[in-house]
Amino acid sequence: MTISSFNPPIRTLMGPGPSDVHPRILSAMARPTIGHLDPQFVVMMDEIKQLLQYVFQTKNELTIPVSAPGSAGMETCFVNLIEPGEKVVVCQNGAFGGRMKENVERVGASPIMVEDEWGKAIDLNKVEDALKANPDASVLAFVHAETSTGVQSDAKALCELARKYDCLTIVDAVTSLTGTPLKVDEWGIDAIYSGTQKCMSCTPGLSPVSFSDKAVERIKSRKQKVQSWFLDLNLVMGYWGAGAKRAYHHTAPINPLYALHEALVMVQDEGLENAWVRHDQNHHVLRAGLEAMGLRFLVNEADRLPQLNAVLIPKGIDEAAVRARLLNQYNLEIGAGLGSLAGKVWRIGLMGYASNVNNILLCLTALEATLTDMGYSCDSGAAAQAVNAKLREQNRISA
Amino acid sequence: MTISSFNPPIRTLMGPGPSDVHPRILSAMARPTIGHLDPQFVVMMDEIKQLLQYVFQTKNELTIPVSAPGSAGMETCFVNLIEPGEKVVVCQNGAFGGRMKENVERVGASPIMVEDEWGKAIDLNKVEDALKANPDASVLAFVHAETSTGVQSDAKALCELARKYDCLTIVDAVTSLTGTPLKVDEWGIDAIYSGTQKCMSCTPGLSPVSFSDKAVERIKSRKQKVQSWFLDLNLVMGYWGAGAKRAYHHTAPINPLYALHEALVMVQDEGLENAWVRHDQNHHVLRAGLEAMGLRFLVNEADRLPQLNAVLIPKGIDEAAVRARLLNQYNLEIGAGLGSLAGKVWRIGLMGYASNVNNILLCLTALEATLTDMGYSCDSGAAAQAVNAKLREQNRISA
Repeated sequence: MTISSFNPPIRTLMGPGPSDVHPRILSAMARPTIGHLDPQFVVMMDEIKQLLQYVFQTKNELTIPVSAPGSAGMETCFVNLIEPGEKVVVCQNGAFGGRMKENVERVGASPIMVEDEWGKAIDLNKVEDALKANPDASVLAFVHAETSTGVQSDAKALCELARKYDCLTIVDAVTSLTGTPLKVDEWGIDAIYSGTQKCMSCTPGLSPVSFSDKAVERIKSRKQKVQSWFLDLNLVMGYWGAGAKRAYHHTAPINPLYALHEALVMVQDEGLENAWVRHDQNHHVLRAGLEAMGLRFLVNEADRLPQLNAVLIPKGIDEAAVRARLLNQYNLEIGAGLGSLAGKVWRIGLMGYASNVNNILLCLTALEATLTDMGYSCDSGAAAQAVNAKLREQNRISA
Repeated sequence: MTISSFNPPIRTLMGPGPSDVHPRILSAMARPTIGHLDPQFVVMMDEIKQLLQYVFQTKNELTIPVSAPGSAGMETCFVNLIEPGEKVVVCQNGAFGGRMKENVERVGASPIMVEDEWGKAIDLNKVEDALKANPDASVLAFVHAETSTGVQSDAKALCELARKYDCLTIVDAVTSLTGTPLKVDEWGIDAIYSGTQKCMSCTPGLSPVSFSDKAVERIKSRKQKVQSWFLDLNLVMGYWGAGAKRAYHHTAPINPLYALHEALVMVQDEGLENAWVRHDQNHHVLRAGLEAMGLRFLVNEADRLPQLNAVLIPKGIDEAAVRARLLNQYNLEIGAGLGSLAGKVWRIGLMGYASNVNNILLCLTALEATLTDMGYSCDSGAAAQAVNAKLREQNRISA
């Protein structure tokens, strides 16, 4: 049987990621491949480092993209910072805290779990209790923006607690980076990882990471070798290090790095603060429309991520049928619930390029038509009117 | 300081990889991103598996691309197949055998090294001695095509030896896949990894792997969890597994997978055997030209890889200056020597799309002009004439 070229359908991606990739970024990705040790490639690598420092708001020298998806970025933090036998306080209020636990165990360390309900922010008091009860813990690990629930936790306060109890921090910022305020140096984060496919509108496959000097010190003075050769930062630093003399470690994913460079240039050109404001405003626009349709959010107002909206499924509605209809009829992807929230919420992403008013209108009208068809009762057109009212309030359209 | 979009120069890539990427593949990479759980994406994943089975010449069910470069493919094989305390016979006749040793050690296992000189094929007798002396060894690991030296070893005979001594095999095929005969099932290879950026003309960043049923059995019955969460095939299998019901593991690198799909379709359309013949013929054409210029090969004729030519640097020539001139004046990249061969050889790749007569002519004439300019004496035009003579002999141009 002969297989033909793959021509994907044109979707609108409003799930938990990947989000829509901007055409400029797709086009950058298709530029001619050059060598991974080419002097011009090295210049581009330096620019990527500099732009990543900007979006992370850090001066950390060790700020690079790991050559693999966000999950590998997570693993990079854990295998480099933690040695066998150590104790790590891990906060879990969703799927990705659970993955952190797996990482700690596979390093041969002991996770001390601080659990909160899925859909709630991390409880600072419980974390302090755990740190107090485990004075020998070396690291506090938590998720800034839980992709499984749409919750953001108070990363700044959590880092303060960690410092108070002499712990380094490992922070998951896969969904928060460039979508919501995140300040690595000001908050004192020691190790952070993210992904490219969320609020930066880039393709998935790379994981930006950043490490404080204190973290680098710990990595350099490890007793045991890092268990992963591929992710060993002592070696990776030699390739991404300063200066023209780079040591070959692995073959970098050239074209995905072109795409990341372009995505970062676009954030720079928009301005990081402006990107945060855009994500926030569009969340309020979507929310106005959803609430006009009688839909409600899973998460408390104060803890909601603007870029990832967990919406409760109305009683009696077959949620999978709704998602299938949106995909097949409107080429619109929204996300299902994960883990304990499966069947209970939809996850509607407004990330990066996809965080725009046209997408919001498409999503609301397609959802309204589909739900109405399935017997859910809501005022026809109310969502679109609420959108307009909110845009006027935000001074984005004239009165 | 404002950073602008990156527009790479147009190079001709004739180093040890990445090789030139075919425009069809670059263009496939820029197709619109869809979700990693999209039903249409799942269809494409199945096609990739099927096409990888073809290029690996295997029926192995577990035949997938790892979502990271070849080094991560290597690590996937070692962390999944080997448990702490085991003994692994590792053949080293170049840089990548050394990396295998690192991998074995980081798993907490013991490498038994069988060393051959860089530039020589693996000595079967030494391997048999090592297997005989270590009846408790569980795995034999070796590099089929050494990217650092341009040597191919007898993978078929090595696998026979491994079976005789009841060892599984881990085989590095980063540079051999689709460039030179490789038959996973016929030769009885248990675990194999490759890269996308060599003889498939795809962009770097993914690592095709394949595991025999016996290897899968061993992975499923491990005593300890795989030390890497990201590379744990027990989990990855759930995402790449058969059927429509896929379990989310990590976000797949969507667009690079489009590129791999296109690259594989192109190999299918050319025919795998035809690709092998093309690589072989073009090696002989390049060789005719190089020898006409008085240049010599590092490797014995019988052990040479057609896709990677290690050429001895003439006495008195500043090899780095030659490479810099080729890059700056002709936009032509050839590779330096690695490790103990640094300063002694150039590595000239004829991989995938880049294995064509135009590239050979460019390389020979640019090299001739550069070397002549640096005081090396050779007959002007002799290389081009030798190319024509060889092409006529191969019946590729008319007499």
